[in-house]
Amino acid sequence: MTKVILFVLFQFFAFLSFAQPNLVPYVHPLIGTEKMGHTFPGATVPFGAVQLSPDSDTLSYEFNGKYNGDVYRYCAGYKYEDKTIVGFSHTHFSGTGHSDLGDFLIMPTQGALQLNPGVASNPKSGYRSAFSHANEVAEAGYYKVKLDDHNILAELTASNRVGFHQYTFPKSDQSHVILDLMHGIYNYDDKVVWTYVRVVNDTLITGYRQTNGWARTRTVYFALSFSKPFKAYGQQSQDKPQVYKGFWRKFDQTRNFPEIAGKRIRMYFDFATQEGEKIKLKMAISPVSQENALANMQTEVPHWNFEQVKTQAQTAWNRELSKIQIDASEPDKVNFYTSLYHTFVNPTTYMDVNGQYKGLDQNVHQANGFTNYTTFSLWDTYRALHPFFNLIQPARNNDMVQSMLTHYDQSPLKMLPIWSHYANDNWCMSGYHSVSVLADAIIKGVFKGDAQKALNACIATSNHRDYEGIGEYIDKGYIAATSNSTSVSNTLEYAYDDWCIAQLAKKLNRQDVYEMYQKRAQNWQNVYDKSIGFMRPRLADGTFKSEFDVHSTHGQGFIEGNSWNFSFFVPQDPATLVQYMGGPKKFATRLDTLFAMNLPDMFFAETEDITREGIIGGYIHGNEPAHHVAYLYNWTGQPWKTQERIRMILKMQYKPTPDGLGGNDDCGQMSAWYLFSSMGFYPVVPGSEEYSLGSPSVKNAQIKLENGQTFIVEAINQSDQNVYVQKVLLNGQPLAKPTITHSDILKGGKLTFYMSAKPMKK
Amino acid sequence: MTKVILFVLFQFFAFLSFAQPNLVPYVHPLIGTEKMGHTFPGATVPFGAVQLSPDSDTLSYEFNGKYNGDVYRYCAGYKYEDKTIVGFSHTHFSGTGHSDLGDFLIMPTQGALQLNPGVASNPKSGYRSAFSHANEVAEAGYYKVKLDDHNILAELTASNRVGFHQYTFPKSDQSHVILDLMHGIYNYDDKVVWTYVRVVNDTLITGYRQTNGWARTRTVYFALSFSKPFKAYGQQSQDKPQVYKGFWRKFDQTRNFPEIAGKRIRMYFDFATQEGEKIKLKMAISPVSQENALANMQTEVPHWNFEQVKTQAQTAWNRELSKIQIDASEPDKVNFYTSLYHTFVNPTTYMDVNGQYKGLDQNVHQANGFTNYTTFSLWDTYRALHPFFNLIQPARNNDMVQSMLTHYDQSPLKMLPIWSHYANDNWCMSGYHSVSVLADAIIKGVFKGDAQKALNACIATSNHRDYEGIGEYIDKGYIAATSNSTSVSNTLEYAYDDWCIAQLAKKLNRQDVYEMYQKRAQNWQNVYDKSIGFMRPRLADGTFKSEFDVHSTHGQGFIEGNSWNFSFFVPQDPATLVQYMGGPKKFATRLDTLFAMNLPDMFFAETEDITREGIIGGYIHGNEPAHHVAYLYNWTGQPWKTQERIRMILKMQYKPTPDGLGGNDDCGQMSAWYLFSSMGFYPVVPGSEEYSLGSPSVKNAQIKLENGQTFIVEAINQSDQNVYVQKVLLNGQPLAKPTITHSDILKGGKLTFYMSAKPMKK
Repeated sequence: MTKVILFVLFQFFAFLSFAQPNLVPYVHPLIGTEKMGHTFPGATVPFGAVQLSPDSDTLSYEFNGKYNGDVYRYCAGYKYEDKTIVGFSHTHFSGTGHSDLGDFLIMPTQGALQLNPGVASNPKSGYRSAFSHANEVAEAGYYKVKLDDHNILAELTASNRVGFHQYTFPKSDQSHVILDLMHGIYNYDDKVVWTYVRVVNDTLITGYRQTNGWARTRTVYFALSFSKPFKAYGQQSQDKPQVYKGFWRKFDQTRNFPEIAGKRIRMYFDFATQEGEKIKLKMAISPVSQENALANMQTEVPHWNFEQVKTQAQTAWNRELSKIQIDASEPDKVNFYTSLYHTFVNPTTYMDVNGQYKGLDQNVHQANGFTNYTTFSLWDTYRALHPFFNLIQPARNNDMVQSMLTHYDQSPLKMLPIWSHYANDNWCMSGYHSVSVLADAIIKGVFKGDAQKALNACIATSNHRDYEGIGEYIDKGYIAATSNSTSVSNTLEYAYDDWCIAQLAKKLNRQDVYEMYQKRAQNWQNVYDKSIGFMRPRLADGTFKSEFDVHSTHGQGFIEGNSWNFSFFVPQDPATLVQYMGGPKKFATRLDTLFAMNLPDMFFAETEDITREGIIGGYIHGNEPAHHVAYLYNWTGQPWKTQERIRMILKMQYKPTPDGLGGNDDCGQMSAWYLFSSMGFYPVVPGSEEYSLGSPSVKNAQIKLENGQTFIVEAINQSDQNVYVQKVLLNGQPLAKPTITHSDILKGGKLTFYMSAKPMKK
Repeated sequence: MTKVILFVLFQFFAFLSFAQPNLVPYVHPLIGTEKMGHTFPGATVPFGAVQLSPDSDTLSYEFNGKYNGDVYRYCAGYKYEDKTIVGFSHTHFSGTGHSDLGDFLIMPTQGALQLNPGVASNPKSGYRSAFSHANEVAEAGYYKVKLDDHNILAELTASNRVGFHQYTFPKSDQSHVILDLMHGIYNYDDKVVWTYVRVVNDTLITGYRQTNGWARTRTVYFALSFSKPFKAYGQQSQDKPQVYKGFWRKFDQTRNFPEIAGKRIRMYFDFATQEGEKIKLKMAISPVSQENALANMQTEVPHWNFEQVKTQAQTAWNRELSKIQIDASEPDKVNFYTSLYHTFVNPTTYMDVNGQYKGLDQNVHQANGFTNYTTFSLWDTYRALHPFFNLIQPARNNDMVQSMLTHYDQSPLKMLPIWSHYANDNWCMSGYHSVSVLADAIIKGVFKGDAQKALNACIATSNHRDYEGIGEYIDKGYIAATSNSTSVSNTLEYAYDDWCIAQLAKKLNRQDVYEMYQKRAQNWQNVYDKSIGFMRPRLADGTFKSEFDVHSTHGQGFIEGNSWNFSFFVPQDPATLVQYMGGPKKFATRLDTLFAMNLPDMFFAETEDITREGIIGGYIHGNEPAHHVAYLYNWTGQPWKTQERIRMILKMQYKPTPDGLGGNDDCGQMSAWYLFSSMGFYPVVPGSEEYSLGSPSVKNAQIKLENGQTFIVEAINQSDQNVYVQKVLLNGQPLAKPTITHSDILKGGKLTFYMSAKPMKK
């Protein structure tokens, strides 16, 4: 009885929350699935552990034994360009530039059993199916597609840790569900280290899989429940025969076996189905154990009501999306809420309902008083995503910082994460940008934990002499070109990170630390060649490297960028950089040149992660290092150029179409850039309270803060032509300079932009 | 202060316990290490989880990709015949007929670093070392050997879960400790599935290794502590390069790395040593986690006192050995106490100090109120080892039965163990002899748990129709020769096991079950061919197979035995068998023939597990099926022949030399036969309270029972010639027939044999 009442109450509150505007229709998960966006179209809840999504292909079927482009191409498992779907797997990155995951592929089929995926050019060669975008629906928390070759309608939804499948079959005595445990993303021959499956009864199986991929040592446990008992089941192992075959001698290991273990296992489950019969599956995952996976399922989805799970997922999405309510054009609303959706996909929950998770030390830990998260793409996300969370998701960002500190505690190196997922650091990209995230969260008052401990973790990480030239950087003030292939960008990024540590130390009254790191923060000057006015690789003897190309992104001492872009990377001190580069006027002219230059085709062939559309002139928006650059006009006395460029980038780099993202979304960093910029302000230098103003593209945005305040951005006379800002009032008072602070926003109030078609060149 | 007092008290009690006779010197662990015994010479405590022992070679270095003899030859990792030692690993079977384990090989070396083991024919080709038996000492709980090639003295001891190494080095700047994580017993190319190692600090490393061997899915976690910080460390991976090398790019993974993961890892640790400097290592293992391994170490051996651990190990051994105190010749005492030692090596503790263990379902479980054991070689050990435990180790056997029932609970098949180790069943050998162990323990009042549940587990196991012909056996009363290659021995063993279930059901007042299984227990009659008087393969149509050889052990329908031996396998009803075979006189003549026949050389070439010395005439003592046969003369009215044969077998099959065992010790079964028989009684039919009397070889044996009683066996006029029993008195009363019961013994008292050189043919 109590249960019924609670359920009714729940429905009532769910209704209440829908009394808010329904923003879910503005989310188009297919945006970014074509070309370079690397987003996935499937079902997930905000920051959910499960991302249940179609894989249109992966590396598994074409791998030639070498690192090749497909590692990159199928980062999200799905490409809008593809004509077939292999199946639906439960873990996906959103927008990354390297691949992994793709755990536990499920595919419903019908007709003669096929246990290999087949090839895209001939889908009938395997269990995969042709499909059409006309029969595909992708919503926040829901995905639907017709599998043409099997005449099966597939629908997917999810709770945090459970993927919920609903398959509508035709009448058939040969209906099957395939569970391909060899499938994975970034799936070279030896990725699957070991797989164990236990058939508990005719509707439940549990097991685990250990992989050696981008994450070197990763185990995911599962529990898979069927709404209808399977008639029979079996497997086809691709394993080499074992030396000892006791098990095989005593039991049939291909049909109706009680358990199976090996490296290369594909299972099937047989059903007879009536026309239109729905078979539902729940797949729960856990980083800890089969038991925890089962408990996750029983806690989150103890029933078979697909619609209820879908409604809960979409209610959860709407609750998050409603934190910002905007008035804008319909296409802009799609861009905005899809961006908001993409920022709330990662980082992902990484603990079971009982709070257990696998730590970086490969031990099981208990998260006490916080939600443990993983999937930290920090080189990307320190810039705008975590600052965005500090504004919109401070409670979660507090937990994310806590998660990073537990990572530090469990690290055998005693280092904060670089790029971490699933109890592993893959060490991707450069810098030690965790320190930026920690500093920003502490300086903005978001982190409620032990700030001194956080500072100590920053100090330890930044003094890890063995790591990527840090020792030389400390000794010399820069990394020599002969020591490291990305010596210049490393030096620049360390210098910025050190500035963050200095600000944090200042906040925490650690004067000695502040002074030391403030000094280290100047190290950018050591790789600036005044003679040419560019950042440039320097040799150990102090001279600059002679052969040098300011346009090329390869072999010039930079990572994912060229000197043209990276020379602007001094977010901690644009004013001094402006002076170094000849003063405001010359600096502005350089920015003009950047946005206007013509790069040779050769450049695109050599550059990762971006399409031609990801570049405006020489400004590379598809990669991150220049994300603050358009705001630098604000330091030259020509803010109208910032306004103009921002509106241009918003327009050109974000479109409400599958190919709408010009580069990898990078776990939400691209989207967070959009969200800030479309509301008229941007954190040029995370680690400070200051936002630099640009030109909002929305007419109105209401930001509902966790502290109960509302901050409103209003753009008077807004239009596509009126990209220039005439004046800005904060709570009715004109601003003296084009900045506001985090504290200004937290107080609530209104920021009013007066827009015009003419630049205010005063 | 309290600690000191406790320690003094402990030493005092340790002294008190040594006030018992010191029996440790009678244990010669080298017995059985030559030829077929398959025992290991290293250090372990009674029923300990760690068996720290030298490996003289294993399959790893010579494997040719096929199941070959070395899987068998190196079951215990060490062969007395070998001239070199590869190193010291921490897990070993004792006396098995198949191999596995060999986890975590440690080898101290000196001079130029070598990271491959090299070959026996040229030990200097690797880290292995030549050694001499003259420099080798093997005691219960202690092992010592001089490693000639490195001039290092190696000493080993152990607690339950910790292997303790003490290495005395010469002066050298190039002293090393090798940790070979590729090494294993039964080590074919793909056995090591995954290895993870974490260097916590310069004296501690932790990690785990997952293997796919005889146990299909097995993970052992470890914590390894060094008494002295290593100067440097490194590894040489034999792995294929990974596709993604982020880690390798950022860190040197060959020297002083923080962690490493892969399939093929060999590590080294460097030291500078003074002349005679001792470096000590503690290696703790766990089936659950690195943390548990560390807790096991910290709980069991929180210090570096090698002598203390050795003393504790030997005190523990003496406590167990003292449960039976005998008067016998010195060689007989060596045989007796070494047998007692070998019976107390397996089964092994399989849980951590906190009670956690990995279950058959691959989940972590908590052992509540019992010690969880593994290593159940039940086809062997149901015969005499578990009955021996019911007498000498009832508390432990109660826990072993509990462990078997938890195995049943965790089994996806709902079957009791067949041959289980480390959360796996390897399904080795035939029958479902767990039921015999359960019935014997319950009927003898040893098992304190839920007896009805145990009976239900027996019933479920025996009705698993898919398993090894059980369905056909139930339907037809026998297994057809065409269905199963060991159809006759399976039928015979099932019939005996069914009799056990019937006895258990009777005890528990389950009349219907009793009747059903009493009927099944007669099924041996269905494979007895009266026309030839032998057990014989039968076809599905009821006729007997025409081509048939009663001497051959291959392809005749029997496992590890021929029809000659297996035709006597009706332990549940010798009286009826005697009638079937023509009455007492003819039956006795057949037994005479068995012991006197000459088997062709061909027989030995074809037969596993035994040497020529393991056979007396056609009686095969080196394998188990005939272990009760010498006692069957007691059913023919010619008990003096039992007496004569038993004394002959005791003499011929057990010698106090490395080659002293004529067949595999089989986890203590061979030894348990010796112990019973040397005390004059034997459990011909486990599941009954009855022991059949033979001829004791001891002069006197005092059995100190757990209930506080003492039962004494006394042999008046004992000598090597006086093998015949003139009369037997139980507490002064003559026995009417050559049997005593378990209850007789439990009451305490004295069994007096009057020995003579002449048979009592009355």
